[in-house]
Amino acid sequence: MDTRLNVFADFHPTLPPGYCDSDLVFLANIDPELQLSVLKQVNSPKLVACDTMNFWIDNKPNELKEVLKHVDILMINDSETRALAGEPRITVAARAVLDMGPKVLIVKRGEYGALMFSKDSIFWAPSYPLEEVIDPTGAGDTFAGGFMGYIAGHDIVDPAGFKNAVVHGSVVASFTVENFSVRRIAALKSEEIESRIAAFLQLSRLD
Amino acid sequence: MDTRLNVFADFHPTLPPGYCDSDLVFLANIDPELQLSVLKQVNSPKLVACDTMNFWIDNKPNELKEVLKHVDILMINDSETRALAGEPRITVAARAVLDMGPKVLIVKRGEYGALMFSKDSIFWAPSYPLEEVIDPTGAGDTFAGGFMGYIAGHDIVDPAGFKNAVVHGSVVASFTVENFSVRRIAALKSEEIESRIAAFLQLSRLD
Repeated sequence: MDTRLNVFADFHPTLPPGYCDSDLVFLANIDPELQLSVLKQVNSPKLVACDTMNFWIDNKPNELKEVLKHVDILMINDSETRALAGEPRITVAARAVLDMGPKVLIVKRGEYGALMFSKDSIFWAPSYPLEEVIDPTGAGDTFAGGFMGYIAGHDIVDPAGFKNAVVHGSVVASFTVENFSVRRIAALKSEEIESRIAAFLQLSRLD
Repeated sequence: MDTRLNVFADFHPTLPPGYCDSDLVFLANIDPELQLSVLKQVNSPKLVACDTMNFWIDNKPNELKEVLKHVDILMINDSETRALAGEPRITVAARAVLDMGPKVLIVKRGEYGALMFSKDSIFWAPSYPLEEVIDPTGAGDTFAGGFMGYIAGHDIVDPAGFKNAVVHGSVVASFTVENFSVRRIAALKSEEIESRIAAFLQLSRLD
């Protein structure tokens, strides 16, 4: 096994008591064994979302698949979807990933947008066409934050609501990449988000 | 200059007389000097669309730019757009290409869909998520054929019509790649196109 796995050997996250009754859980990209240990500390979550990466897909596939049994929404990128499924065709790979447990798979594709798969539907979200990308670092985490924030703010757990959450996540992430670190989103105003969402929705409108 | 340019030195296409009064012209990807000579044979086209490739962008940029002055719609891919504009940012590159003459630029992005730029709008079309891609050869030409065919069949020259033409071109091209050569599209039924267009439109629908 890769020796880099030992770096976090002494990291055992414990949730503050107030967090253990959370309705919404997002398991950010970290060792799947830790993701599972965090999830077990939450008493009865209504919705569990999860991120991961190629490193865990390659090195801890069994632990990751155990996590996926308890996940409602998995958010990963194109190549991670293909690697996790061992299948190059994205639609076939998506179905294989859904068979591992998640009810919904969101495939993040950077400037090419995002695809959201469920058992019986596909939703295609564009990416806001930016004039300038300064640093893509954190775009995926911001997407997740924007997605979960939308769900928390609108109290929805149905697929139609997920579509709007994808749009919200994509738009918030489009600000993150306009500057380094959190500079752009720390200064972000809700009017800016609303305005960009309106432009975003116009993008794929036919009439 | 690249010696491969001499291969077609003796090719001087002459349009049959009946073609010289065509309303719609599509200049497929070929030496821009030949594209211009073909265009000059058409008396008063209402709409001129054009394809090209990196080879001509690199080797005959001036001749290509002369063609672009007479083109309404340019259809090229991501990397060709960036090469033609000498600019990596796609939105900025698109604006630079529009400044060369075309009223509309369609950027083809394969499985990631297509972007259509005009001076004051951007339209984002998804790509139909296929289960199986056998051979992508001819997808771009089929897109162009489906696009121009839609315009010819609906007698439209306005941007809203172009959006529907992009959808039609994308859907027809999605059949082409399902088999080698023209096998799939030669056997294609209009009901199959209609059915896939309906699924296609569902992809990016929010409600």
